[in-house]
Amino acid sequence: MLKFSGKSVYKGIVLGPAAVLKNNDFQVKRERAEDSEAEIARVETAVEKAQEQLQKLYEKAVKEVGEASAAIFEVHQMMLEDDDYRDAISSMIRTEQINAEYAVAVTGDNFSEMFANMDDDYMKARAADIKDISNRLVRNLAGQEDMDFGSMEPSVIIADDLSPSETVQMDKSKILAFVTVHGSTNSHTAILARMMNIPALIGVPMDLEEIHTGQTVVVDGFKAEVVFDPTEELCRETEARMKEEQEKTELLQTLKGKENVTRSGKKIHIYANIGSVGDVGYVLENDAGGIGLFRSEFLYLGRNDFPTEEEQFQAYRQVVQTMAGKKVIIRTLDIGADKQVDYLNLGREDNPAMGYRAIRICLKQKDIFKTQLRALLRAAAYGNLSIMYPMIISTEEVRQIYSIVDEVECELNDAGIPYKIPEQGIMIETPASVMISDELAEMVDFFSIGTNDLTQYTLAIDRQNEKLDDFYNPHHKAILRMIKLVVDNAHKHGKWAGICGELGADLELTQEFVRMGLDELSVAPSMVLKVRKNVREME
Amino acid sequence: MLKFSGKSVYKGIVLGPAAVLKNNDFQVKRERAEDSEAEIARVETAVEKAQEQLQKLYEKAVKEVGEASAAIFEVHQMMLEDDDYRDAISSMIRTEQINAEYAVAVTGDNFSEMFANMDDDYMKARAADIKDISNRLVRNLAGQEDMDFGSMEPSVIIADDLSPSETVQMDKSKILAFVTVHGSTNSHTAILARMMNIPALIGVPMDLEEIHTGQTVVVDGFKAEVVFDPTEELCRETEARMKEEQEKTELLQTLKGKENVTRSGKKIHIYANIGSVGDVGYVLENDAGGIGLFRSEFLYLGRNDFPTEEEQFQAYRQVVQTMAGKKVIIRTLDIGADKQVDYLNLGREDNPAMGYRAIRICLKQKDIFKTQLRALLRAAAYGNLSIMYPMIISTEEVRQIYSIVDEVECELNDAGIPYKIPEQGIMIETPASVMISDELAEMVDFFSIGTNDLTQYTLAIDRQNEKLDDFYNPHHKAILRMIKLVVDNAHKHGKWAGICGELGADLELTQEFVRMGLDELSVAPSMVLKVRKNVREME
Repeated sequence: MLKFSGKSVYKGIVLGPAAVLKNNDFQVKRERAEDSEAEIARVETAVEKAQEQLQKLYEKAVKEVGEASAAIFEVHQMMLEDDDYRDAISSMIRTEQINAEYAVAVTGDNFSEMFANMDDDYMKARAADIKDISNRLVRNLAGQEDMDFGSMEPSVIIADDLSPSETVQMDKSKILAFVTVHGSTNSHTAILARMMNIPALIGVPMDLEEIHTGQTVVVDGFKAEVVFDPTEELCRETEARMKEEQEKTELLQTLKGKENVTRSGKKIHIYANIGSVGDVGYVLENDAGGIGLFRSEFLYLGRNDFPTEEEQFQAYRQVVQTMAGKKVIIRTLDIGADKQVDYLNLGREDNPAMGYRAIRICLKQKDIFKTQLRALLRAAAYGNLSIMYPMIISTEEVRQIYSIVDEVECELNDAGIPYKIPEQGIMIETPASVMISDELAEMVDFFSIGTNDLTQYTLAIDRQNEKLDDFYNPHHKAILRMIKLVVDNAHKHGKWAGICGELGADLELTQEFVRMGLDELSVAPSMVLKVRKNVREME
Repeated sequence: MLKFSGKSVYKGIVLGPAAVLKNNDFQVKRERAEDSEAEIARVETAVEKAQEQLQKLYEKAVKEVGEASAAIFEVHQMMLEDDDYRDAISSMIRTEQINAEYAVAVTGDNFSEMFANMDDDYMKARAADIKDISNRLVRNLAGQEDMDFGSMEPSVIIADDLSPSETVQMDKSKILAFVTVHGSTNSHTAILARMMNIPALIGVPMDLEEIHTGQTVVVDGFKAEVVFDPTEELCRETEARMKEEQEKTELLQTLKGKENVTRSGKKIHIYANIGSVGDVGYVLENDAGGIGLFRSEFLYLGRNDFPTEEEQFQAYRQVVQTMAGKKVIIRTLDIGADKQVDYLNLGREDNPAMGYRAIRICLKQKDIFKTQLRALLRAAAYGNLSIMYPMIISTEEVRQIYSIVDEVECELNDAGIPYKIPEQGIMIETPASVMISDELAEMVDFFSIGTNDLTQYTLAIDRQNEKLDDFYNPHHKAILRMIKLVVDNAHKHGKWAGICGELGADLELTQEFVRMGLDELSVAPSMVLKVRKNVREME
């Protein structure tokens, strides 16, 4: 038995054979090549082929995991077109008179290292992508095809780290779990695991040389443990627990179409949080009553310029039409802090979490905000759309927002473009908004409590900071009291209040939330039925 | 008339002649010097002379502005001994066979640039210090004496930026105001201005070449404006306002020895905030009733290792003895965030303001905390000392603190060392502590509200971030409601509550604070009498 602990990014338990993905870097040789232009032409051909491959991967991914996850292949396509990257390759071929393979591999390493050393988390994460496209080019130059996962039996994928193009090529029905040495809670692997509802561990300090494909392995996402060559007893125990989990899942399926109602008849809305148009499928599949938080950032991230009004309008309309009359709450741009886009040129801040972000950007750079509002007002004419404003701290901000909405309305009116003024609410995610929620309740249609940020500010703890794990308590009484205060103030003014932060999906608190009188909980699609179960079991 | 706007770091208004300090860098020539060892010996002599000069400046500064401000000359003395700096000079003299002056000047520029490019604000600020000591060495090498400010008539000091050694050499009675092109709110100039009670503007975009010594100038710290060659009308107006301010100041002096009591007989304590033993003089001079916040960081900052128990004990004892029975509230180590010390090796954090700081460091690195607690308990035997713990977010933290205090008490008991368990309170500076202030009030002896951090977290705004100036509102209703809640919860449990943040000195709010029932306001020494005046004028 060989046991390791890691960080669990999605719960679940599984027993099966390991499929070890060793690092697939080619051993690239440096060779002298006098005809530099011929080598550069070879790179061009390899790039063209890569573009085709990536286009296919993109289309496969859109179908299987939705647009948000597929977008990474668009990023790869853009990276392939990057002038700095391409010039570096050509220049190395010319000045050092070397072969294309070597120039691509070295350039890939250099750029990857450069990204890895950047301060910005988003850019850091791009190091793996650069490595990925460079490996692809080297494979193409060598005439090798993409790896074939088709013949694999259902397995636990064991790897150093997984690149998006590795995971999308896998047949999802044959993946039992992910276990990687590296990766972060927000990595591609973690997101995929949550979508696919399979256990995943990252940061597992295992030596891939000591593990081989076919070895039996138990992955326990609850205990955050992985065990290779488990004892017979552990195998039996694991199988029993898998059966149990399976039964729970099946039981959950029977809750589809049922109401979110307690035994005493109290009802609550259970909506879903999503981050892209492609995720709407998960909302419907899990029988959520609506979309409680549609993050509009996907339209802004991973591109070179702002999305146009038309692009946004099409996306919002598609979602409200697909949801066919069910509520769709779209949150306006919440960028800044750990979500950065180059074209906004936000610059470095000492404390970005308490920085220039979200509604602050929208109120200072009104053009960005107006474009989004126009798209939202237009889309509102096609279904049950609500707008939600993030990071509000004052009544003055709400007044400013309304005056901008008025401007937009006048412009649409003058231009004779169809629109609707939808329901408008705010995120309650700053302690300031909690303390003046009585005054805010008079002004808005609803509150949605963003517990993640609210907890950060209330406890003065950056929850990404591992040094503070001992002090961070998501169930802190201060937070629960704030939620109660917000709900009471909303109801006093005849408004509704929900939670769209992670705490909303905390099954230990579901019943307390119902008792507090929350009107809505918006959770990850995979949590909808679990929360419904908790509600229905309540006295 | 030539008018500029800047950032006011201390209010006041003044009219007088300008004294322009042009950048005093020598024109250092690069000369060939074959006898490198002779040049290195010249540097040694210049360093020795500099050490003597700095020692004199230090002693002068201790007498005039207190130990905290004088400490900078100790830092300079340490920098002069720095091996990297000295080796760089010697090495340049040897390898380039050049004269000492040139090697010192270039090394100074290099090191200064290196510091200026550091991420850490504390290190950035050291760039000016390196420049300062290098200039001193160059002057010493050239046989020039320190500048003579003795013969200057009372003037408004106009400079690019002021180094500590420049300001300390000035005869304070001849400085009417400071106006600089550079500098920050926390720069040496700003601190000095607040101590000296004279107007100061920083960040004024003036061209020093266009201004000359003797030119008449108006500095208006209220409007944050400086006007060269003012019109006669402005001169008259300024003189009238200066007279008015002067009368106000004289009137304030008559309040010394008087009680802080409203006309209806309600009393409140007005204490002072200080940052070093040397500041105690200001507390007594301004007739503060006690010290409401004694920041213990001065013992930890600007040195190479932790202060010993004995050093701390001596400092704390000196303060409580000097205050002769008046209350002295000492806050335990509040380091981290923007206050860093190298020997703690805290490392970079994405959001240091919500990071590993203050009580969090003390609870995780118990040895540091225990040394301070031992010193505090011992000093408590010598006067009216209270301990205050910063950044509390939970009752659990208070329990942990008490158990560490118990340990310390046992150890002191066993060793037969005299001590006293003093009054123990907490800072209320996180929204979490506000929300559970009812439970915290049961456990501690008093609350002191740290409005600076509390406002940051409540509004989710880093107040150092200039981009957010439009959103930052120190009078936000959320903060005032929080203060009221905290006071009420303290009183319900028979405890007292005060404010030690900047808001406590906000004269627009004094009367509201009295009405809320605050028991204490702790403010900068120079604000004590102003707040007293406001209290006494209240119905």
